Order: sequence, then C-alpha cells, then structure tokens
Amino acid sequence: MLTPAIITETVQRALAEDVPWGDLTVQLTIAEQAWLDTELTAREPGVFAGGPLVAETFRQVDARTEVSGLAAEGHRFERGEVLGRISGPARGVLTAERVALNFAQRLSGIATLTSKYVEAVAGNGASIADTRKTTPGIRALEKHAVMAGGGKNHRFSLSDAIMLKDNHLVALGATEGPALTRAIVQLKQRVGHTTAIIVEVDRLTQLGAVLDAGGTGVLLDNFSLDDLREGVRLVAGRAVCEASGGVNLDTVGAIAETGVQVISVGRLTHGAVALDLGLDAA
Amino acid sequence: MLTPAIITETVQRALAEDVPWGDLTVQLTIAEQAWLDTELTAREPGVFAGGPLVAETFRQVDARTEVSGLAAEGHRFERGEVLGRISGPARGVLTAERVALNFAQRLSGIATLTSKYVEAVAGNGASIADTRKTTPGIRALEKHAVMAGGGKNHRFSLSDAIMLKDNHLVALGATEGPALTRAIVQLKQRVGHTTAIIVEVDRLTQLGAVLDAGGTGVLLDNFSLDDLREGVRLVAGRAVCEASGGVNLDTVGAIAETGVQVISVGRLTHGAVALDLGLDAA
Amino acid sequence: MLTPAIITETVQRALAEDVPWGDLTVQLTIAEQAWLDTELTAREPGVFAGGPLVAETFRQVDARTEVSGLAAEGHRFERGEVLGRISGPARGVLTAERVALNFAQRLSGIATLTSKYVEAVAGNGASIADTRKTTPGIRALEKHAVMAGGGKNHRFSLSDAIMLKDNHLVALGATEGPALTRAIVQLKQRVGHTTAIIVEVDRLTQLGAVLDAGGTGVLLDNFSLDDLREGVRLVAGRAVCEASGGVNLDTVGAIAETGVQVISVGRLTHGAVALDLGLDAA
Amino acid sequence: MLTPAIITETVQRALAEDVPWGDLTVQLTIAEQAWLDTELTAREPGVFAGGPLVAETFRQVDARTEVSGLAAEGHRFERGEVLGRISGPARGVLTAERVALNFAQRLSGIATLTSKYVEAVAGNGASIADTRKTTPGIRALEKHAVMAGGGKNHRFSLSDAIMLKDNHLVALGATEGPALTRAIVQLKQRVGHTTAIIVEVDRLTQLGAVLDAGGTGVLLDNFSLDDLREGVRLVAGRAVCEASGGVNLDTVGAIAETGVQVISVGRLTHGAVALDLGLDAA
Amino acid sequence: MLTPAIITETVQRALAEDVPWGDLTVQLTIAEQAWLDTELTAREPGVFAGGPLVAETFRQVDARTEVSGLAAEGHRFERGEVLGRISGPARGVLTAERVALNFAQRLSGIATLTSKYVEAVAGNGASIADTRKTTPGIRALEKHAVMAGGGKNHRFSLSDAIMLKDNHLVALGATEGPALTRAIVQLKQRVGHTTAIIVEVDRLTQLGAVLDAGGTGVLLDNFSLDDLREGVRLVAGRAVCEASGGVNLDTVGAIAETGVQVISVGRLTHGAVALDLGLDAA
Amino acid sequence: MLTPAIITETVQRALAEDVPWGDLTVQLTIAEQAWLDTELTAREPGVFAGGPLVAETFRQVDARTEVSGLAAEGHRFERGEVLGRISGPARGVLTAERVALNFAQRLSGIATLTSKYVEAVAGNGASIADTRKTTPGIRALEKHAVMAGGGKNHRFSLSDAIMLKDNHLVALGATEGPALTRAIVQLKQRVGHTTAIIVEVDRLTQLGAVLDAGGTGVLLDNFSLDDLREGVRLVAGRAVCEASGGVNLDTVGAIAETGVQVISVGRLTHGAVALDLGLDAA
Repeated sequence: MLTPAIITETVQRALAEDVPWGDLTVQLTIAEQAWLDTELTAREPGVFAGGPLVAETFRQVDARTEVSGLAAEGHRFERGEVLGRISGPARGVLTAERVALNFAQRLSGIATLTSKYVEAVAGNGASIADTRKTTPGIRALEKHAVMAGGGKNHRFSLSDAIMLKDNHLVALGATEGPALTRAIVQLKQRVGHTTAIIVEVDRLTQLGAVLDAGGTGVLLDNFSLDDLREGVRLVAGRAVCEASGGVNLDTVGAIAETGVQVISVGRLTHGAVALDLGLDAA
Repeated sequence: MLTPAIITETVQRALAEDVPWGDLTVQLTIAEQAWLDTELTAREPGVFAGGPLVAETFRQVDARTEVSGLAAEGHRFERGEVLGRISGPARGVLTAERVALNFAQRLSGIATLTSKYVEAVAGNGASIADTRKTTPGIRALEKHAVMAGGGKNHRFSLSDAIMLKDNHLVALGATEGPALTRAIVQLKQRVGHTTAIIVEVDRLTQLGAVLDAGGTGVLLDNFSLDDLREGVRLVAGRAVCEASGGVNLDTVGAIAETGVQVISVGRLTHGAVALDLGLDAA
Repeated sequence: MLTPAIITETVQRALAEDVPWGDLTVQLTIAEQAWLDTELTAREPGVFAGGPLVAETFRQVDARTEVSGLAAEGHRFERGEVLGRISGPARGVLTAERVALNFAQRLSGIATLTSKYVEAVAGNGASIADTRKTTPGIRALEKHAVMAGGGKNHRFSLSDAIMLKDNHLVALGATEGPALTRAIVQLKQRVGHTTAIIVEVDRLTQLGAVLDAGGTGVLLDNFSLDDLREGVRLVAGRAVCEASGGVNLDTVGAIAETGVQVISVGRLTHGAVALDLGLDAA
Repeated sequence: MLTPAIITETVQRALAEDVPWGDLTVQLTIAEQAWLDTELTAREPGVFAGGPLVAETFRQVDARTEVSGLAAEGHRFERGEVLGRISGPARGVLTAERVALNFAQRLSGIATLTSKYVEAVAGNGASIADTRKTTPGIRALEKHAVMAGGGKNHRFSLSDAIMLKDNHLVALGATEGPALTRAIVQLKQRVGHTTAIIVEVDRLTQLGAVLDAGGTGVLLDNFSLDDLREGVRLVAGRAVCEASGGVNLDTVGAIAETGVQVISVGRLTHGAVALDLGLDAA
Repeated sequence: MLTPAIITETVQRALAEDVPWGDLTVQLTIAEQAWLDTELTAREPGVFAGGPLVAETFRQVDARTEVSGLAAEGHRFERGEVLGRISGPARGVLTAERVALNFAQRLSGIATLTSKYVEAVAGNGASIADTRKTTPGIRALEKHAVMAGGGKNHRFSLSDAIMLKDNHLVALGATEGPALTRAIVQLKQRVGHTTAIIVEVDRLTQLGAVLDAGGTGVLLDNFSLDDLREGVRLVAGRAVCEASGGVNLDTVGAIAETGVQVISVGRLTHGAVALDLGLDAA
Repeated sequence: MLTPAIITETVQRALAEDVPWGDLTVQLTIAEQAWLDTELTAREPGVFAGGPLVAETFRQVDARTEVSGLAAEGHRFERGEVLGRISGPARGVLTAERVALNFAQRLSGIATLTSKYVEAVAGNGASIADTRKTTPGIRALEKHAVMAGGGKNHRFSLSDAIMLKDNHLVALGATEGPALTRAIVQLKQRVGHTTAIIVEVDRLTQLGAVLDAGGTGVLLDNFSLDDLREGVRLVAGRAVCEASGGVNLDTVGAIAETGVQVISVGRLTHGAVALDLGLDAA
C-alpha cells in the first residue's frame, strides 16, 4: 500500500533526478504567471494506477497546481478517456509532466497486465499474486499497482514471512518425511504466531511432512498440471496451495483449473511495460 | 554513469525494502558459519549490465562475500554462460540473491533491448539514444544500461540542456521564421555556452529558423520517412538531426537510412522487461 | 532482528546526538596516540543484548578500536562478569563509552525482564510475546532484545498482519456470529495468504465466528482465568490462543496454566529500565 | 528543547517503523469517509509531556485530523483526566494511535518521575538535573520531558561543555594540587569562554585546585553526606556544587539538604517507565 | 537555479546547524505571543540575491511568519534601502535572523561582485561565467547568485559537459594536430549530442585541431591579450572562445576587448565576501 | 571540531553536487588502469586547514587513492610548499581534484585570515573568537578552520549558550539596574549550570547589573576604546569581557590593548576568501 511518507519520498527522489537544479527550458521560455489547463489522457485502454503519485508530483513542483477528477486506482479505462485534470502555473505543469507520466505509465502498465491474469483465471477461485521480483526502490508502488489490477500481494519482504526453499531445506538436512516435519515444528516454536510459514516443494512426496507440521502453505514449484491437481487433492484444504513457475497468459488458465488457490507470477512486475498515457492541453 | 555514491545508496534503498529487519528464513534455517559458492548464470542470451550493483548488494549484506569473475558491462553472452561467481556466508548470499538479481535482470534487459536497436541501424551512421522515460529513482542505472547496450545518453535531466517543444514555442509566440530565430538567439544569450539547445519541430518549414539561430540540434518528431530525408537534406550538417516518435524494431532501420544522426527511443527503458538470470550453486 | 543497515544508522543517529561536533574534553586532555584497554562489566546479573551496537559504536568513533570477547546475545551473566573487551585509541574509547552503554543497558534491561516472564511460564507451553509498545525509533532493537531474552516477536508493524480490534469490528458492523464470520472470510479474500488474521475478542461468544472463518488466532483480551480456560477449550487447537491485559510477573504464571499458547506483554518494552553495566579499565 | 525539525523527523521515523507500507487492518475494515472523535485520557495520575509529538503524529498520518485541547507540557493531571481531543478520519486516527501513545507515555513517564525527585528536594534550593543516559535517538525529547517535570538539563552532548572525569585527569597527569590547577588553566586558554568546565572529583582534597583555576563547577561523585556538606563549605559559592551517584527517591532529600546546588540523576531517563495513557472514543 | 527541494533542504541543514535543539535565549526571554515587525535593510549598496532562502528560513522556524516585499533576485539597491519585511512571532523571527542573513549576505555578496565584472565588460559582447570553484554544498545557490548578478553559468558539474584539460589531452596522447582531431571526433561518437565538448588549450597551434573536430568551444587559458585576439581571429566564430586565468576587475575589460565571447572567473564565488545586510525593527 | 560523521557527510554532499552521475571527461579519456602522482602545493603563503576533508574526498571517489604527508591543521606554510601527496588511479584523482581543493582553499583561507588577527593581538592576552556568521551548511568546518588559525570558537549554536542582546533585554523589560539583575538571576534558575550566560551591553551603566547577577560574560558592543578600557576596569575580572563591532586588522590591535579578554570577529568567516592552492603532477 501507499502511505503519505512513501509518496512524498518517492516523488522527491524522482524530481531530484529529473530537475536537480531547475528546468532551464521553462525558466527561459514561459512567463512566470502563465497558466495551463491539461488532461491526463489514455492513449490505449487499460487499468489505472499511480494517481496519488501524479498528484504529489505536480504539487511538489508547484503547490498551486490543482489536480482534479483523477480516476480511482484500479479504474478500467478506454483509449482516449480522460483520467484526470491538471491546472496550474504553466512552468510547474510542464516541469512535472514527465515524472508524473513515468509514475502513471509504469504503475498502470503493471495494473493492466495484472488484470489480464486475473481475468484469465476468473471463475476458478484462484488468486493472482505478485513476487519480490520488483524494480529496486519502488516495491511498495508496484505491489500497490498489482492490487489495483485485482491481484494480491505475496509477502512484502524477507522480514515478514518464512519461505523455505530448496537451499533452506538442504541446510536443515530435512527435505521430506518426519525430519522435515520436525524441522518445521521447531521453526514454529521460534517465530511469532503471526508469521506465515510457506514451504516450496518440488515433488508430491514432500507434502505430507508440511501438512503434518501445520505449515501455512505449500508452493508447488514447476509442477505439471497433473501433479498440481494431485497436490491439491492431497492437501485437501489443510494448507494454502500455491503454484509458480512457467506461468504466462497462455498457461495461467489451465493452472487455475487444477484447484490451486494462489498463482504467483513474477511477470506481473518484471514483465510489465509502460502503458501509453499523455498530458494534453485541455 | 554509475558513481560509488549512486551504487551505495541505490543498493541501500533496495535492501531496506527487501530486508527491512532481517531475513527470518535464513536466520532460522542456515548455520551462521555455512558457506555457499554460487554462479550468476544466464538463462537466455543477452547483453550484461548491473555488475557493480550485484557486487555491492552482496557486499552490503555481508562484507565477507567475494564476488569474482563478473562479466564486463556490455558483455554479450549466450544462454547458460556464467556471468560471475559469488562465494560467501550462506546466510548473506541467500538474503542478497533476489535484490542482486532484480538489479541485473532489469539492467541487462535494457542493455539487451538497446543492443537490438543498435544492431538494427548498424551501418547507417545513426546512433540510438534514450529519453527521460525511465523508472523513477533509478535513471542513472537505466541510462548506464543503455550505454552498456551500445546506445547513447540523451540529456540526463531538465537541468542540463534546453529542449524547446511545442508548448514552449507557443509560449514564446514564435513557432517559425524570424520570430523563432530571434527567440532562440535571445535564449542563447541567457544560458551558458555548454548548454545545448534542441528544438523539436513538427514540420519542415520550421527548420530554417533554427539553423539561422545556430541551434545545437533539431528533433524531427513523428516525421514521415520522406520528410526525414528532406529534413536531413535541408539541415545539411549545420545541426544534429534527431528523429523520434513511432520508433520500434520494425521501423528503426528505415528511419536510420534517412540519414538522421540520432534516433531517440523511449522503449529502450519504458518498454524493457527483465532478462532471465539466475543464481545457481557452483 | 538486527541488520547491518539498522545497526549502522541507529549508531550514526546516536552519535550525531551525543558528539555532534566532537568531544571537547578528550580533544584537550588525551594525547592522540594514547591507548586504552577496557572491559564491559556487569554491575548486576542479567541477560545480555546489544553487543553488535556496542561494537559498531566504538568502530564508528574510531575504526582502529578492537572489540573482542563480546558475550552472545541472550547470554545470562552474573554480577561482575566481563561481557567484552574494548581496546583502542583512548580518545575514541572515552568518546564512544556513553552511547555504547546506553545501547547495551537498555537492550539488556529488556532481555533481562523478558527472561523473567519466560521463566515464570516455563513448563506451561506458553510463549511470551512483545507488542508494538516500543520506544519510537528503535523498535527493531527492542524486538531483538525480546528475542534475546527468550521471548517471541508479535507482528512488527501495522503492515505485516491484520489484527481486528473492537473499533474495527464495530466499523465492520460485525462483532460476532455469522456476520463476523462473513466479514473475516471477505477479508481473507482480499489479503495475501501470508498475512495472518488475528481477532481480538472480549467475550467467549465471539470465538465461534472466528473459528468458522478460519482466522489465524484469537486474542483473548482481559479475560478471567476461568474464561481463558474455557476459551482454550472452545478453540481446541483450531487457532492460536493469545492472552493479553493485566499481565505482570505475579499473574503471568497462572495465565500460562490456562493453556493459552501466547501471552503478549507490553511491559517487556515499555516497562523495562536500564540494566547496570559499566566500562572499566582492564 | 523541541524544534519543528526534531518533531517532524522523529515522528517520520516512528511512523516509518510502525506503518512502513500502510495499515492493512484499517484499509480493509474502515470506510474511507468514516470519522472518529477520541480523547487522550490518563489512566493514572502524572505530569504530561509529549503533546507536540502526539499532534504531529496524527497530522502526518492524515493532515485533516484535528488535535485540540492538548494539555500543556508539564501539566500535572489526575487519573481519568482528558489530556486532549483528537478528531479525524477514522482510518488515520486508528493508524496513528499507537505511535502517538508511545511518545506521550514515554515522555510523560519521564516528566512524572522527574517531578517526584523535584518534589523530594523542594525547599532545599537544589535543582534536579538529567544526564547523558538517554535512549539513543530521542535525547532531545527526553531532555524536554525532564524540563516538563521541573528538572534542569545538564550538558546536551560531549560537544557543549567540558567535564573532566577520572580518566581525563589521569591522562593529564594531574589529579590535584598545583598540577591540576595548571592543567585547568591551560584548558581554559584553549576553549571559548562560553564553554563550561566541570571537574568530577572523588575526594575533598581535589577541590582547592579546581577553585584556584576558576572551574565552572565541581561534581562530587559518590560522596558521603558528611563529605558533601564539607565540600559545599569548602567551595563556598566559588563554583557550582553538583552531587551524583547513588541518588534515588529515598536518598535525594538528604543529599539536597547538604547544600549542593545540583543533583544529577541518571534514573530520570534510564529508570523511567511508560505512564499509562489511552485513547478513548469521545 | 533554485528549486523548491534545494531551498527546503538547504535551509533545513542550516537550521539544524544553528538551532539543533532550540534557541535557549528566546525561549527564556520572549513571551510566546510576542510579535515582531522587522525590515531587511542594506547597510551598503549592492545587488540582491537569496530572497527565497530568507523567506524559507523564517517559514521553517515558524510558519506563521509573513515575509513580504522582498526585493527581486538581481535587484540593485542603495545603502539603507529596505529589501523586505518580516513580521511574525518574535521568538521565531529572532531565532531565524542569523541564518536568513547568512544566506542573503553570502549570495548578495556574489551577485554584487559578479555585477562589477559584468559592468566592466559592458559593450564588449563578452559574458562573465562562473566556475566550479564554489563553496561545497551550496553550488546551486552560488550559481543562482551569479545569474542574479548578470553572469552566466558554466557547466554545473563534471556530469554535464566535457572539458578536456591538459591532463586529459596527455592521457589521450593527443595535444594537437590530426591526433587531437581524431581523439575529439571519437569522443563525439561516444557521448550524446547534447553534451558540449570544450577543449582547454595553452597555445594557438592547438586551435586548428579542435575546430576541425567540431568542438563546442575552446578555453584559452592564461593567454596574453595578443594571443587572445589572434585566437579569436583564428576561430572565426566556428567555436565559442572562452578566456580564463588571471582575470580580475583590473584586467577583465581588456580581455573582453579581445573579442572572446566568454570570460570565466573563479573569483565570482571563491573571492566573494558577505555583503552587509541587517534586520531592523520596523 | 571535525568528526568522522561530519567529514563523511560533507564530502558526500559536495561530490553529489560536483559529480552527480559520473565524470564524463575522465571516463572517456583516461584509461581505467592509469595512475597519477600529485602534490598539493601552495601558490601563496598561509595557514593550512582542511586536510581531513581533502583525504576523504579522494578516498570517496576511489578508495585505492593514497593521501600521504598531509600538513597538520594549523601548519604555517610558504609559497611553493608541498602540503601533501595524492597518488591513485588517475580517473579518481582528477575527478576529486576540484572538490578537494574547494575544501582546502576555503578552510585555509579562513585559517590564514584568523592567524593575521591572532598575530595582531599577540602579547595583549586577548583571544580572537569567531561568530555565527558562517557559510550555511559548513559551520563545523569553518569553526575548525578558525581554531587551526589560532582563534577560539564562540558558541556553536543558539542551543548551547545564552546571549542576551538588545531585543531580549527589551522583551524582558530590564535593560539595567536591579531589574536586569533579577531577570538574569531568574534565567540562571531555569537553565543548567553548564550553560553560559553572556549579556550584550551598549553602555557602561549596564555592567553592574550583570556582575551582580553573576553572568558569565559581557559583550561590549561597538564601544569606544576609552569605554572598553573603562568597562574592563569596572568588571575587574568578575566576568569575561568581550569586544565586538567594527573590528578589522587595522583596529584589532588597539582593541586588544584595552584589556578585553575576547574579541569576536565576524570577518574571520564571512570576510575570508579562498587561499590559492593547486594540485600538481609530482
């Protein structure tokens, strides 16, 4: 989620990068008192995200700028639709334009891509979740965009949930059977009760041990559709079943039909491109 | 370009986001003295970028980690190629892995995409340049990746060159002819002599005024191939000719053949996706 | 948990506060080349915490200072025990002394108090957990100290778990029965599967709804011992039972005997005082 | 003292810690337009401190929140007294509640404890002063709370006064007599005239040298009551007499009766616990 | 140029330095509700700069302070002239006074000195440019003051233009002739087209190579007046001619008469002293 | 004084300003493995200051750079003297050169000017002190340079001493006589005993009241030489006598002869210009 602090600091950093010591061009060409009315317009259809960052960008450059009628986060729009109105001193509006668009285009790109995955699994009861494969420095923004697109957030960081992957199991000397059960039970005794424990498995024979230990969820990594189905049957609701690996818009529907509850998709963030939005004179 | 300060701060921010108060999983599963030898491996062919960030990420998490044999920035690699070796305390290596990969995958994605544009215009004398359409907060990294891919950097920010676009010309009340010439000449008298003045034009009749005023370059925006050719002929080397708008891998070759010297491509950064790299046990 | 970044920044802030522009006294009284060997000594028995901050404080003031033999976090010590040796340029050792002690005394105070609660419930299977009632700015340190004392960490922040308290239930218009079950189920559909959902209840009749919805845990707030026992019986292992309210060293044993799994205690942090440690010439 | 900058930054840091990427619970349970009226209420008697931090916390979370009727810093209150009113969007009020209380409870705890020491010496002409034994990162807040409780601030940091302790005197090779006088006189020639010079002594025979040199004050460390009285007699107003060591609520009265002007008490800050305050629906 | 971010951060830093934990004096002497009306007054004639920093300083200390009638940046004033009015709570006005004056006095000092150089070359068509010899940490402010004084800004930093000095030419193994031309041409192929390339030369025989390569400008360093004139003749408008070295108010007029277009003067910033301004009760 | 934290941060800020995203010129002209040996050389005589900042600047740009033989802070040197040796990768040395010189030139300029004032009063027992008229953001550096030049530091900030000026006295309603005495005595009861109380007076009749109240010092502002002499006589050693106003190198000697102990001189910092130092190939 976005907080006032995240929004303020992220916009400050972006402006420091794009306007470190002023916009030479507007300073020398635009009268100080000139006013400009503009519209944020969609040049292709999609799902909107990034509105609070757009508003803050214009505000930081010139606090007199008014941003109104911004589309809600998650709003689905058509090509040509007006997504917001920005009116203010012309210098400020022009200076802020590119940074504001960079935010809205990247986040709307992620929201739009997420919404396609969500639609592809609609009716199957599976949710689409993001991963930690985000652009360094703006994870909160990108995870917010995933939610705007109808997806769910997986753990935010390494600090807020336990996920045991291959390397960790090997280090524990326990990849399945009673040894794995014991290892997970011991873990549970050391962490707080609000910390989820997810175990990534690569074969069906590992599932029993996780269930016996009371793990929160199992991540079925790179399973065939048949094995996913069998995994869901074996787990039988005692833990959350999550699928990952080789997920794309062609395969996600079939994966969802296996009955898994969560499909995590790195592409939501690392495979998204900017959606085409523009700022037009009103 | 990357500086030590940029590398340090960007990695700090990324780790603060991904490991805000520790990696719960490694802390509870990996022995403090366990050691891990890994290789950064390409899962698809491409052009490498981001090595200094990879090294710094592992170093910040645990200064005892050794990163060696890192591919040079701009190195072209095949699928399966080893791009570097990371050896260190297993806890630190596993904690840093995702952030390191997020850097290398995004930057190598940009370098690889850039290299395709550069190849597509090879032999035509045109250079491929980036734009300000970068991910907020990591522009220096993304512009570095463009250079690694063989592209050139356009202005870094609004503070280091003047680019007169439609809005500015309208504000100046001078879109062509002697009025435009006068306006540019006046501008030149007010800025330092190291500041380039680029004028974006949307029709050929504007060119004369820019040349008369001694502008550094003209940006021919959304011109047809014929008009680009005519523009290059009219300018006759008196300013740099730059093309932009509607540039993709299908069109860039023909645009280069018109004789323009620079083709600026927003897609280099806003249309790039992560390249698939992984960290494998050595 | 502590990370290198947290340690570095917290010590920087503490030194900026205590030595903003140098230590006037040592500068004018101690020769630059004078060396000092000291021991960190316990002036009362307790449980140690804060060692990494002690080491970093001396290091930041003068990198030549050697800190060795530091007691492990969670080490139980007697009065008079030496908990570490600090040798270095006398100026730096004397300048850093107070800040280093401030860290170790506060964190060891928390660890020691926590260990008393842990001992008081030993054998009852209940764990002692902290709360969000921490000193502003050093929560990660204080939660680390709770772990050093044998306690467990509750959620770190408002961002990493859901806890429905009275106000939230009222806002949802659902304090028990099917309405509460429906509200929790809807919540679960909107958050990721790694996010725990804890419901604070103030009467036994609310429990059924939480269990039906599959909540992660119930917080039995200010329950009598009899009601706690009855709550544990009703929950029957289907969720984690947590007790809070009116917990002190006199009452915690009896609370643990009711069979609750977690007892959360604000006093661990907001009721801890500094443990008496000193730095003595070796 | 508190400054706008200190208040802003300290609250930012506390919120970054407690709400790093949003309050999951309120976001999913409380309507955006819901409004909440609350009162900050005392659950035990005491002396108030921290009001400006309470107000800033609510303001940073949601600038529309109104904080009114805040008790003055240093206000003495009874159990049940209303210390302020907070009205605002329910989401923001609930999100900010814990951080605001953490500030007010810690600072009021210090102010209340300080006031007890001040009362215990009332009528004796001695003032109660704090030390540098403060919680790392919030010294300015804690020293402010000491003032709110009627105490005085000793030096803020190592940069703003000279205090010669045992180690420094040994390093100077001058612990008493003409050698100590010469050493102090030389010091005075090297520092500015606004810098106080306090000398910590552990026996009466050191006093003469300090007085001869014109030191600002003497710190009589761990002196018996008889020796304190004798010290005061010997100093005879030529320097400030300060007592420290073994000061608690049982001993402070007798110490004050010896005639010392200042009694410095580490416990004011390192021995204070949170005062019980709460936020109740109005 | 100044940006809101630069102004905010620079003032924050200056106040953190001058009022780290409050203004002891006003707190103890001035009533909280006292109001003060003051005027910023010139104690000697000059050219004004720093107004936005003055306003921000008073605002940060107390947002209720009103700053009005501030002279425009670059305004030329007489001794005794009122340059602005500051009215506000007396505590805040007195606390902020020194920092506000420090900004205005330093920047007006630079603007005033610059204006003297500009006057000395008036009518000769040469412009006066600053250098990178600025006070660390406030370059943007000092370059802004140069502009206020009628000067021009040279490159802002090492990142926004190429300047080949002696060391670089030696490293390239090319100090004149075709080798130098080739080296510059190769450079041009590697940098973006908005990056100026200036070559510092110390003899006339180097000029041809730079002109052949199409360099943006030549810096004639420490040339005699005769050689400057000859250089201007040889360049003949094909590049910008800049003179530097040994420039002071006695020599700058003659240098300008040689026909160079730019004279860069380190003294504008490193040789400026504070202009005498004061804050008087209105 | 300088601390490691101040040095690190000030250099980071200066480099961020001068090399925000790399040194284009060295990157394209200097081989990565080229090495450069240089000497920091005096181009005019003076007193050295800034060495730690010089060393840190080169180190931050490239940690392999070796800085050796640096002159001590306060070292008096002749024209042509070598003040230090810097050897390192040529890219780094050239990139860091300007920032390093900017530090050393400004601070040596202050140290040199201070030393002239100190010499002018030699033998009179008066010390030369700085003021708060420093360049915003680098006060600690400038006050350090004053000490290097043989001067003393006045209070560092508004937080570490009380100075009652005209405005404060008027606000207290007590400019002389018993009213002033009472006001100062009351102040003393409210501040800690390490806080100096200096009273600025503009006529001799105010002195008695300050002495009666036991003030630390009196600032005789803009007094004639006769009045200074009379003031010193009246004070008779009971407080520190400080003169200020109209102090320059022509007047300072006579002022010192009046017997005042401290002469505070704003010009030390606001009237200093850069000393000419250079970096020459060794």
